[in-house]
Amino acid sequence: FQYYQKISIPRKLRICGFSSVYLYLLYGTPLYVINVYVIRRRCRDYKEAFCRYYPQSATISYAAKAFLTLDMCRIINEEGLSLDVASAGELYTALWARFPASRIHVHGNCKTPEEIEMALQNRAHRIVVDNERELGLINDMSRRLPAKTPVLLRLAPGIEAPTHDYIKTGHKDTKFGLHLKGGLALQAVKRALTLPHIRLLGFHAHLGSQVFDLRSYQEMTVVIFSWLDKLRRLTGYVAEEINMGGGLGIRYVPADHPPSIRKYARVLCDAVQGESSRLKYPLPRLIVEPGRSIVGEAGTTLYAVHYVKKISNGSVMAIVDGGLSDNPRPALYSARYHLSLANDVRRGPSRRITVAGKHCEADVLFKDARLPEIRPSDILAVSCTGAYHYSMASNYNRYPRPAVASVSNGRARLMVRRESLADIVSHDM
Amino acid sequence: FQYYQKISIPRKLRICGFSSVYLYLLYGTPLYVINVYVIRRRCRDYKEAFCRYYPQSATISYAAKAFLTLDMCRIINEEGLSLDVASAGELYTALWARFPASRIHVHGNCKTPEEIEMALQNRAHRIVVDNERELGLINDMSRRLPAKTPVLLRLAPGIEAPTHDYIKTGHKDTKFGLHLKGGLALQAVKRALTLPHIRLLGFHAHLGSQVFDLRSYQEMTVVIFSWLDKLRRLTGYVAEEINMGGGLGIRYVPADHPPSIRKYARVLCDAVQGESSRLKYPLPRLIVEPGRSIVGEAGTTLYAVHYVKKISNGSVMAIVDGGLSDNPRPALYSARYHLSLANDVRRGPSRRITVAGKHCEADVLFKDARLPEIRPSDILAVSCTGAYHYSMASNYNRYPRPAVASVSNGRARLMVRRESLADIVSHDM
Repeated sequence: FQYYQKISIPRKLRICGFSSVYLYLLYGTPLYVINVYVIRRRCRDYKEAFCRYYPQSATISYAAKAFLTLDMCRIINEEGLSLDVASAGELYTALWARFPASRIHVHGNCKTPEEIEMALQNRAHRIVVDNERELGLINDMSRRLPAKTPVLLRLAPGIEAPTHDYIKTGHKDTKFGLHLKGGLALQAVKRALTLPHIRLLGFHAHLGSQVFDLRSYQEMTVVIFSWLDKLRRLTGYVAEEINMGGGLGIRYVPADHPPSIRKYARVLCDAVQGESSRLKYPLPRLIVEPGRSIVGEAGTTLYAVHYVKKISNGSVMAIVDGGLSDNPRPALYSARYHLSLANDVRRGPSRRITVAGKHCEADVLFKDARLPEIRPSDILAVSCTGAYHYSMASNYNRYPRPAVASVSNGRARLMVRRESLADIVSHDM
Repeated sequence: FQYYQKISIPRKLRICGFSSVYLYLLYGTPLYVINVYVIRRRCRDYKEAFCRYYPQSATISYAAKAFLTLDMCRIINEEGLSLDVASAGELYTALWARFPASRIHVHGNCKTPEEIEMALQNRAHRIVVDNERELGLINDMSRRLPAKTPVLLRLAPGIEAPTHDYIKTGHKDTKFGLHLKGGLALQAVKRALTLPHIRLLGFHAHLGSQVFDLRSYQEMTVVIFSWLDKLRRLTGYVAEEINMGGGLGIRYVPADHPPSIRKYARVLCDAVQGESSRLKYPLPRLIVEPGRSIVGEAGTTLYAVHYVKKISNGSVMAIVDGGLSDNPRPALYSARYHLSLANDVRRGPSRRITVAGKHCEADVLFKDARLPEIRPSDILAVSCTGAYHYSMASNYNRYPRPAVASVSNGRARLMVRRESLADIVSHDM
């Protein structure tokens, strides 16, 4: 039964010079496609921008949580970026891919003793400590090690980032880090300075994700530096390093207008240099941790349309072979996307179509997407699905997770193989 | 480093006679625990209730999407229930566990030709057809088979179930089934009756999930039967079988008061019998498909508390070693739960505590839960996590998915083994 192959292809969407329909024929759907060229371009944009606006010393550390596979580690390594990992699984992936531990920053608000042990044993570059109890644990566990463990303390700056509630991480009630108000952060610094196996190098703060308004970064810089200045007066401690997190937004739909990487770099670096000179604070090394803005726009998801239905209000619903399990973002964050018809880009958008998934709940992926007339066996391409899609995928309804294919230089290869039905039961006893 | 084991245990939560702390020591956390006794009890409650109120012929078909493993198939088989599967993966799991295909109902709003082929080859008991195109496909693909393929048509009754938008499935804009208004359903019946390889046995309708108000079922029955009556007048066709779906709610928090299984059965059966006799419509076989109400209350999730933090408003946040990846329901549906302190149930609730997970976003699992004073290395038990938890789990942040342990008759065993770090990279190329 070759129902799928009846596609007449006048003009197909190309991803990095590669026909999306050919990718679909090679690897099937749903399929995540990663344009490696875009990833490399973004990595270089970050390096160039920070090199220009912060020539003293800036490090770009890719936030692994957005998308991490062995291949991705290799790409990030080749581009010379550092890596920010937030779990044993991410650290394990990086080490397995031979990513140098001397460029790995270990994050996480709930590090287990096993995770700390793994970071220490492998001599991770920095551990970003979330709270005082963790600081004590790391100190105890570093006792046997020859050198002090280099750490940053994570601060909660108490700033409301203009983004979705679920991905705010720097506001006043956040679970992350040490709150500046109330003296928790100060107390932790004092403790860190007395601990014999800890080397406190500086601080980390992260506002949240998908942020468009650069004034939040300026605000954060002012808050952090005025606290650093106060800290210097109270304890004499001067930070060598500050990590300003990530969070730069990307363009999911044409109406989104995120600032460019260059503008973000300029605003952030200007703010840090400005505050530093205003307070006569020695300029620290600067680290930033972009994730979404490196890999987000590099990803495209391909779905096959299987059924097209009329629904009661006269509008049309296209049913695709993916859904909540490969993209939970519409259900979690009411996320919106730009869609196109991969097998015929010449058909212009003519109506509003709702795209629903295959799962046993409402599972509406895209509401009122502007699309041409859709027919079964059309291929839909969803843009900007590189970050937080594969990494958040599930096996809901026991659907195997999609493959991830990468394209670059006119070549396509698998980054992650498609799960099989046998994989689905492989953990059942 | 044995930080975990320092638990002094005055009085522990027991699950089916089994100490939850012992389960934690055996299998680690996070851990899904399934009380098999509760599952068997619920299966029998359903069978007894429908046997009593619908002695003519009622079938209970467990909705696999809620929770399915090889072991679960065995339990459902032993209890003599049928099984409702909605994907190739669920069907594969059932067949692998030697669940008899003659008791399997195949659902899904986006059946691929491969899924249809699999259902046909294995002679599934019924295929519940979502739309007319699928009907045509099944007819074409049944050509080689010796017998006609027995199908039900899924109807969209156009009723707004009183539940969360994401889990409504019978309302007027639903993606599921054939809308009664507008003539789509009638047209599909006419088509089905002409198709040579299709045997139309009746209809299916499903309101949605976690429904408390039984009047919705009465309303649905009236809508379906008046349409059936109209259909009989127009075409002479009389349905032998109606499948009224599932959706009975469960008690996530003490304030929830779902109707009992018995009351649900009585209301539904009375409605069907009442409509049938009012319209002099031959009483059809009745099928119901409970999922959540069989397995939901049988599940408990155990988490270890790793850190306890004060947040700005003076309240307390407990950080546990699970989160969004093992329970996306708080983020998806604003779901609430009842929590208890597994390692010391004598400590009564004394304050409101927010429980947050380990993931790199807000990841607030339970807001303002009433709990006793919490300390690191306490074990939290979250009730009612049997349905749509393991089945929706992801590897977000590359965390291995938890194990599932079952307890019954004082014995504990693994249903699903915990993923390892090696599993995490096993699909990466």
